[in-house]
Amino acid sequence: MEIKKGLEDVYVKETEITYIDGELGRLYYRGYSIYDLAEFSNFEETSYLILYGKLPNIYEYENFVKSLRESRGISDRVKEFLKSVKKNADPMDVLRTAVSIMGLEENTHTYNVSEQSIINLISKFPTIISYYIRLRRDLEPVEPDTSLSHAANFLYMVNGTKPSEEEYKAMDVAMILHIDHEMNASTFASLVVASTLSDIYSSIIAGISALKGPLHGGANYEALKMFKEIGYIENVEKYILNRLANKQRIMGFGHRVYKTYDPRARILKAYAKLLAEKKGGEIKRLYEIAEKVEEIGIKHLGPKGIYPNVDFYSSIVFYALGFEPEFFPTVFASARVTGWIAHILEYVKDNKIIRPKAYYKGEIGRKYIPIDSR
Amino acid sequence: MEIKKGLEDVYVKETEITYIDGELGRLYYRGYSIYDLAEFSNFEETSYLILYGKLPNIYEYENFVKSLRESRGISDRVKEFLKSVKKNADPMDVLRTAVSIMGLEENTHTYNVSEQSIINLISKFPTIISYYIRLRRDLEPVEPDTSLSHAANFLYMVNGTKPSEEEYKAMDVAMILHIDHEMNASTFASLVVASTLSDIYSSIIAGISALKGPLHGGANYEALKMFKEIGYIENVEKYILNRLANKQRIMGFGHRVYKTYDPRARILKAYAKLLAEKKGGEIKRLYEIAEKVEEIGIKHLGPKGIYPNVDFYSSIVFYALGFEPEFFPTVFASARVTGWIAHILEYVKDNKIIRPKAYYKGEIGRKYIPIDSR
Repeated sequence: MEIKKGLEDVYVKETEITYIDGELGRLYYRGYSIYDLAEFSNFEETSYLILYGKLPNIYEYENFVKSLRESRGISDRVKEFLKSVKKNADPMDVLRTAVSIMGLEENTHTYNVSEQSIINLISKFPTIISYYIRLRRDLEPVEPDTSLSHAANFLYMVNGTKPSEEEYKAMDVAMILHIDHEMNASTFASLVVASTLSDIYSSIIAGISALKGPLHGGANYEALKMFKEIGYIENVEKYILNRLANKQRIMGFGHRVYKTYDPRARILKAYAKLLAEKKGGEIKRLYEIAEKVEEIGIKHLGPKGIYPNVDFYSSIVFYALGFEPEFFPTVFASARVTGWIAHILEYVKDNKIIRPKAYYKGEIGRKYIPIDSR
Repeated sequence: MEIKKGLEDVYVKETEITYIDGELGRLYYRGYSIYDLAEFSNFEETSYLILYGKLPNIYEYENFVKSLRESRGISDRVKEFLKSVKKNADPMDVLRTAVSIMGLEENTHTYNVSEQSIINLISKFPTIISYYIRLRRDLEPVEPDTSLSHAANFLYMVNGTKPSEEEYKAMDVAMILHIDHEMNASTFASLVVASTLSDIYSSIIAGISALKGPLHGGANYEALKMFKEIGYIENVEKYILNRLANKQRIMGFGHRVYKTYDPRARILKAYAKLLAEKKGGEIKRLYEIAEKVEEIGIKHLGPKGIYPNVDFYSSIVFYALGFEPEFFPTVFASARVTGWIAHILEYVKDNKIIRPKAYYKGEIGRKYIPIDSR
């Protein structure tokens, strides 16, 4: 009798969505290399690919994009909720609650996923997040602009100005890279919920809830905190060696599947560098710190198969694009929601409730003693 | 390479909380037989036992009960939310959102569970549920009464009158029987979230989200709908044989672990019968239908190891106690929350992120073709 704690190396389903080659550091969505998609595709097209298994033709693409653009608005009820939230709330709690209200409004009692629910979930996450970001900054929320692509509109709603070409491309690529990653904890949490035939909002809420954890989507926030804590490039070596000596993790390093450089980190590093050069100042300083952390980290951890993961450089990219660090996990969620939905659709097509076991190692047959004799 | 779809018979952790003997139809909480606990204990004491591994002495018991009683009130924000909800909302969506707001108010960024969070979660579920029930009935919500026990107060808040001794005992026992059941889907969903070191509210919300599904906590609602649909005892045989002939499930029958009569169903049957006799009318008619469904169901399904489960008779008990069928899963949740918390505490003590794999069976190396050439 074997305990599979953490379910490491347990295959819970077959999939045709994503393949990770952890030895060679390669990632494929529906068989397409992540390098090609990051270079040639965009968030909308890649979302379509992940959801439906093929690249759309021009008509399919235009329909999908149109639906997404037209569905970005959030209800008055969700707006009222966002206005009522304190400014120091955890943005993932805010997103989780807002999506829970969306589910309440759609009022679906069981698993019954419409195309419009899928579109709603993907299109509205950025609006929810940006709305709350603007309120926290004491600024008027910016309504979505249907003339802009998904990633460009997200930045527009956050910053109130249209992004430059580089900013748009960095955001779009970062979102592509976060769409899916096979059976990670948040996707799996979504599946456990969906397997009971609960409604899709409930499943997505479980995904958000899991992504919030610092061992998962919260890691990008932790990485940036670390870069800021280090402060100056001269401090890097001492800081990292000190952490390693104390057996502490280097945030943004290490992944259960990749035993080499995470291809997502490789792509994001180039965009982080580009943005650092364009923006200079704090961004450049943090980028240089990150590069140095990478160098020293790999020297010590690389031989153990521990390398930078997606969160390492995404933290610099998201920061450079105008997101406060507490919001990084919500940006991650706004891309990963597509992956959650795709895995839910794939799993429930041939559903089996996910109900593992726990191995009992306690006593049996204890005798109940009345309270006054205890 | 084996696919463990549904994780049937996969052990995801060791536990000292609950043991199910599926062959003999026995259930133990912390080593105590469910029959003893149902007879001699109460919800509060059994919750203490599940959480802390031992029956409390008189001082521990009184402290625990006091904390629960004093923490029943819900915040104005949660009340405002409940007042704003439409009357046809799914009660599980309402509970999920209300608990999400509680998490937002507590504002915990990571796994850091205080005694008070545990108490809050257990004590406030009934208040949230009852508050919304009263609003749906166009009645004033009833504030909690600290002079009453957990189960008695729950019924008091729902019905506006103090329960009889039988009603209290039936509710209390039903709640005891729903506290925990080893590694079911909702408990597992909670654990997946907790294993990322997300906060406890997020984990509990995943539990609620999974429990909503008709293959899990939604089954009691389905069972009552079936009894009502049958309508009269004369219709039972035809109805059931028809479902069996069409390979449809009998709601409230069958369980992945029990291959014989579920001991919880055995205990609940006695209370359903008692309440049916006391109340007469529709309750008696539904109880008699249920008894007949059981008889015919077991005749045909018993040889395959398919017997009534907890949801079969709990549906009659909850209905007799004044809950509308749509609310049954929320009553289930209000007891199971103790089990979710206990498993989370046990798992995270020696945490490992739950991150299984999916087996990729699609193509690799597809070539990206520009959209106008597709």
